[in-house]
Amino acid sequence: MIDQLPVTLADIEAAASRIAPFVHRTPVLTSRRLDEILGAKVFFKCENLQRIGAFKARGAHNAVFALDEGAVARGVVTHSSGNHAAALSLAARNRGVPAFIVMPSNAPTAKVESVRRLGGEITFCEPTIAAREAAAEEIVAQRGATLIHPYDDPKVIAGQGTAAAELLAKVPDLDAVMAPVGGGGLMSGTAVAVHGLAPSTKIWAVEPAQADDAWRSWTTGVLTPGDPPDTIADGLRTTLGGTGFSILRALLDDFVTVDEAAIVSSMRLVWEVLKVVIEPSSAVPVAALLDRKLPSDGRRVGVILTGGNVDLEHLPWRP
Amino acid sequence: MIDQLPVTLADIEAAASRIAPFVHRTPVLTSRRLDEILGAKVFFKCENLQRIGAFKARGAHNAVFALDEGAVARGVVTHSSGNHAAALSLAARNRGVPAFIVMPSNAPTAKVESVRRLGGEITFCEPTIAAREAAAEEIVAQRGATLIHPYDDPKVIAGQGTAAAELLAKVPDLDAVMAPVGGGGLMSGTAVAVHGLAPSTKIWAVEPAQADDAWRSWTTGVLTPGDPPDTIADGLRTTLGGTGFSILRALLDDFVTVDEAAIVSSMRLVWEVLKVVIEPSSAVPVAALLDRKLPSDGRRVGVILTGGNVDLEHLPWRP
Repeated sequence: MIDQLPVTLADIEAAASRIAPFVHRTPVLTSRRLDEILGAKVFFKCENLQRIGAFKARGAHNAVFALDEGAVARGVVTHSSGNHAAALSLAARNRGVPAFIVMPSNAPTAKVESVRRLGGEITFCEPTIAAREAAAEEIVAQRGATLIHPYDDPKVIAGQGTAAAELLAKVPDLDAVMAPVGGGGLMSGTAVAVHGLAPSTKIWAVEPAQADDAWRSWTTGVLTPGDPPDTIADGLRTTLGGTGFSILRALLDDFVTVDEAAIVSSMRLVWEVLKVVIEPSSAVPVAALLDRKLPSDGRRVGVILTGGNVDLEHLPWRP
Repeated sequence: MIDQLPVTLADIEAAASRIAPFVHRTPVLTSRRLDEILGAKVFFKCENLQRIGAFKARGAHNAVFALDEGAVARGVVTHSSGNHAAALSLAARNRGVPAFIVMPSNAPTAKVESVRRLGGEITFCEPTIAAREAAAEEIVAQRGATLIHPYDDPKVIAGQGTAAAELLAKVPDLDAVMAPVGGGGLMSGTAVAVHGLAPSTKIWAVEPAQADDAWRSWTTGVLTPGDPPDTIADGLRTTLGGTGFSILRALLDDFVTVDEAAIVSSMRLVWEVLKVVIEPSSAVPVAALLDRKLPSDGRRVGVILTGGNVDLEHLPWRP
């Protein structure tokens, strides 16, 4: 089964070469004090320090630069309003082609400005999934632009997997690697990278209990879209995609969920001790360590900190 | 005059070897968006990601590990209550000797806990400079411990200079290197490193206008202790020491001051765009770029971000 996965280590290695000129090789940070608190020797791969402040820059660049000249010239399109929209805008600008970004009319100003600054051409629509998809499809039909899905796309997944590959190149002897699960793009890319490069390293997924559709899908073996998720981890409010699901079923060693209070505590802990700004989604694997959800005592664990895009005016520990 | 300075490049190189096992080789971060805002290509040397969250770990380790066995066995002492106290506690623990830390009875709980966690033995005293100095002198007299001054000490200065040396090893072709000035330990160590390793690179110092004793001393050529400083940059509320003064007089190319509003804006800008937690002192050189206090347009500028120890409950942009 593993041989037939939609993304391979070779895809990740190709992605790494393709995106290298455009993304940061982010640092890996450690803290002895955090290790004591978390009960493991933790290596933090800081994708919050990535371009556009999130790992999404990797997948977007891989997808955009893998398109052939003819297709890419007509532009790329997405209807994500989060980090993928900024990432796709940057990748398109770097390739010199237009990025069409469909955003709901009520999108936060900061996100609109971020996409504009990176040269994305915004189409506003009604704030419903149906309206967003319809607007994106119209752009595909009219412009011939290519839709780049934020996570349910093998090229995007391969790009996201380069973060774990870099982590393992720097710290090869890890007992486990952890990442959060939203749509499953990062987690499945991470799983393919770790399985290929360090077969004895465990692959652990973590999801907010209040957005646990991927956990339920993995546990039951049936892809199960959840109720509308209600978690502070805004990057994980998406539903697991089919491509990611097939990879996670094959490769995950363990999958746990964490509660909202642990996410906030862990976010604050990372800010305070590691001195980096992370968004709530980044704190989700840390919360699993903090709450001893996995048998990590004394182990060497890699954690991918996914992003750092937060509103500094509204921090969760100052309501 | 330069040949007779109290700290030389050889001292910094010796410090680098001495402290390497105990301190992080901190990352250098860049951001194209910050470059656009600041009008320079800026390389941020992230000493906020250093052990104990500040560059002070460097000087303390150099001073403690440079002591001979006989002297160091009786311990080290300081009456700083800031980052130097934590740094000295850690350095002493790493050398296996006691650290005696004199703290005012009204010191913030977080600072007391930080020193305790690192094994420092705290002596509380009245919250006056005279009481602190007297308590430290008593420990020196009774225990035979060695006083390690937080900045007016050539070994401490040489240790602090290793941050700039690492920055130049990674980014050799800088037009200027900037650091803030408090007691002058970091700035003078930085000046010696830059002058020795990259003689054509300018050396720029920045101080809060509301704590400008060093600026006035440098401008007048006479060491002039200031009024009690009143700046949000708590790490810079100290007075320039004589050792640092002699170095800054010889080596600085320029020295400017910045106002409090620019410090807060710059601190927030770094959190928001660079995604790292910095304390107000770290923002002081950034503020000089933001306010175009120095001719930096288009230049490649190194900035030492000095520390990241802040109270997350009390951020200056949410009074």
